[in-house]
Amino acid sequence: MTIRDKTAIVGIGLTDFYKRGQSGSKTHLHLCLEAILNACDDAGIDPSEIDGFSSYMDEMNAAVVAPALGIPEVRFSNLVWGGGGGGAAAAVGNAAAAIAAGYCNVVAVYHGIRQPTGQRFGQVFARPPAPGSTATTTGRDFIAPYGLMAPGQMFALITRRHMHQYGTTTDHLAAVAITQREHARRNPRALRRDPMTLEDYYNSRMISDPFRLFDYCNENDGAGALIVVAADRAKDMKQKPAYIMGVAQGGAGGWGNAIGHQTMPEDIYPTAGHGQIARDLYRMAGVGPKDVDVAELYDHFTGMVLLQLEDYGFCGKGESGPMAAEGGLRWDTGIIPTNTHGGNLSEVYFHATTHMVEGVRQIRGTSTAQVKDAEICLVTGGPSPVPSSGMILRG
Amino acid sequence: MTIRDKTAIVGIGLTDFYKRGQSGSKTHLHLCLEAILNACDDAGIDPSEIDGFSSYMDEMNAAVVAPALGIPEVRFSNLVWGGGGGGAAAAVGNAAAAIAAGYCNVVAVYHGIRQPTGQRFGQVFARPPAPGSTATTTGRDFIAPYGLMAPGQMFALITRRHMHQYGTTTDHLAAVAITQREHARRNPRALRRDPMTLEDYYNSRMISDPFRLFDYCNENDGAGALIVVAADRAKDMKQKPAYIMGVAQGGAGGWGNAIGHQTMPEDIYPTAGHGQIARDLYRMAGVGPKDVDVAELYDHFTGMVLLQLEDYGFCGKGESGPMAAEGGLRWDTGIIPTNTHGGNLSEVYFHATTHMVEGVRQIRGTSTAQVKDAEICLVTGGPSPVPSSGMILRG
Repeated sequence: MTIRDKTAIVGIGLTDFYKRGQSGSKTHLHLCLEAILNACDDAGIDPSEIDGFSSYMDEMNAAVVAPALGIPEVRFSNLVWGGGGGGAAAAVGNAAAAIAAGYCNVVAVYHGIRQPTGQRFGQVFARPPAPGSTATTTGRDFIAPYGLMAPGQMFALITRRHMHQYGTTTDHLAAVAITQREHARRNPRALRRDPMTLEDYYNSRMISDPFRLFDYCNENDGAGALIVVAADRAKDMKQKPAYIMGVAQGGAGGWGNAIGHQTMPEDIYPTAGHGQIARDLYRMAGVGPKDVDVAELYDHFTGMVLLQLEDYGFCGKGESGPMAAEGGLRWDTGIIPTNTHGGNLSEVYFHATTHMVEGVRQIRGTSTAQVKDAEICLVTGGPSPVPSSGMILRG
Repeated sequence: MTIRDKTAIVGIGLTDFYKRGQSGSKTHLHLCLEAILNACDDAGIDPSEIDGFSSYMDEMNAAVVAPALGIPEVRFSNLVWGGGGGGAAAAVGNAAAAIAAGYCNVVAVYHGIRQPTGQRFGQVFARPPAPGSTATTTGRDFIAPYGLMAPGQMFALITRRHMHQYGTTTDHLAAVAITQREHARRNPRALRRDPMTLEDYYNSRMISDPFRLFDYCNENDGAGALIVVAADRAKDMKQKPAYIMGVAQGGAGGWGNAIGHQTMPEDIYPTAGHGQIARDLYRMAGVGPKDVDVAELYDHFTGMVLLQLEDYGFCGKGESGPMAAEGGLRWDTGIIPTNTHGGNLSEVYFHATTHMVEGVRQIRGTSTAQVKDAEICLVTGGPSPVPSSGMILRG
């Protein structure tokens, strides 16, 4: 009894891409509505057909969004609890589960980011917990006082441990950034399309050793949305459906704590914390890493792309760096084409909404770095303490 | 394709009952953990078996709760988005959907309230929106400036409209308060067990016309929890299972706006906004109001109990007041025994956690105001703008 193949993504929508703070008069709500309307248009449905809403880490809940869209009845409204960009695939999973449960028929999965409205996202630990916030406060209470004020610092430590343990190098990190930039250069909407050489990479300033500026994702404002319906309905709609083969949510036992405490065993610490998610996801989908044609892996930092490649079994432990350096992530000749839109590093940073949208494009055959005959696509949410998540789509 | 009868509630747990601000050194997290541990004990399972968490309007997410409980793997973590006590049944629904979807096996549904930690709950509109809050801000932005600063004021207007339109009287409101007090007097844990006469009711001070003090729920701190598992597993466990026949989430079209704007048509305004939920819930459960043996209806205010009785079809429009005054809600001789624990009015106010716990008790036959041969029980979340919810349990 699972949701395998019972639902599909039939619509995708994004707003324009804005630099952080540059969306002007477009509020967070406005951005979310625009993304949902674009996804409805893509799916060929009227927004009034939506009767469910699912998101991760967003304040614009159905009580606000539904009246603005003229939705007559909201029958499902749901938030992946806590976390950063980790809950993205889980939000699709919640939509799929709600449809399979009989709660609703057409779910808009959406997420926006508009940093002037709230706080600058990367400063998440620098402020006291807000009353009513669903964000985890343990980071602020127990991690920030030790000097780890921002995600980049925490993931840098994990990456550094991987380097120490497996011989991963900064050249390997650079290979992730450079490959994704090449993908972004094929994508007319990407914000970072200048060529990037190894020299450019090393000329970018050090921020949190081993991460330089080009190991970091961008900071942007905007929103993305997906429309999810039952598989029965999907087959007669405007777009080729991206069927949801499996979704898993989680966070490896103890890995979340590893970020803060650095006391985890060697088999857990230098990972992306997706080991349990990969196990559950492959089991539900009934496929393995060899079946996956393309991967859109959350990339807040280059190092976490490498560690996810290992967690999902695309290579052995410690082999992800050399694989990336040998072109293994390239859209055209790679072993596992990765972040074909350019990712958060080079396309735009709306957390994982863009990875989910690009995953659907690959299934449809409409990516600007289209993987030939792509049939099965893995999309992940951010490596983060609970919640994190992943999903597998098929054509 | 629905979740009907696929899952069951097999454990219930509550903390001690505290007056608002009186839980002392027990933090919000401590209260939630205590409730979950009590529910595990009741179910006869070890807390380490929990692999999913579901809640409504709570800040203590799985990233915090799971490590404190020693949970090895969190595979599902989910929040009903926004709202007050409305999402209670929906949180059970999310647990049921997650188990049916194959995401996880044992879900703790929980919710705590500890008002000194955050803000006093009834002052929800009196403060500016908190950064990162998932609470709806439209109330604060567009309702509070017109003088509606607290839920009591808003629901008083709806109740007053019902009185105007259908001839409902304050004697009818009193009947709800007095009946529930009688139920509380049978419940040794209830905080309000003094006898209440009609004279006592009218001697209680007017707060927001037509609501007097005794039309209002209490203000308390504490937490409650439920353990949900698949039906297959439930049948071999320690307690008699309360099978989940159906869950519906929603909020009637426009009713949420009615609270703020008072511009809704007469068929929507003087309701509890549960019409759509009732329709979806009965359809999923395959039963109707005549099949329901006992109802635990969210009672932040007496008037909303009456309006829910009409929304769920236990009587016709405008007939709920006379039905209550004629003893229709009594546990022993009533047409539809209602709030047999004493409810938020007289037992304790942990939002709807106590209603869900009492619903399970009725199915088990262990209530202190046990309805004879109770087989089917309706439990609702608070009448509120999206999200609100209801569920039907059976033995």
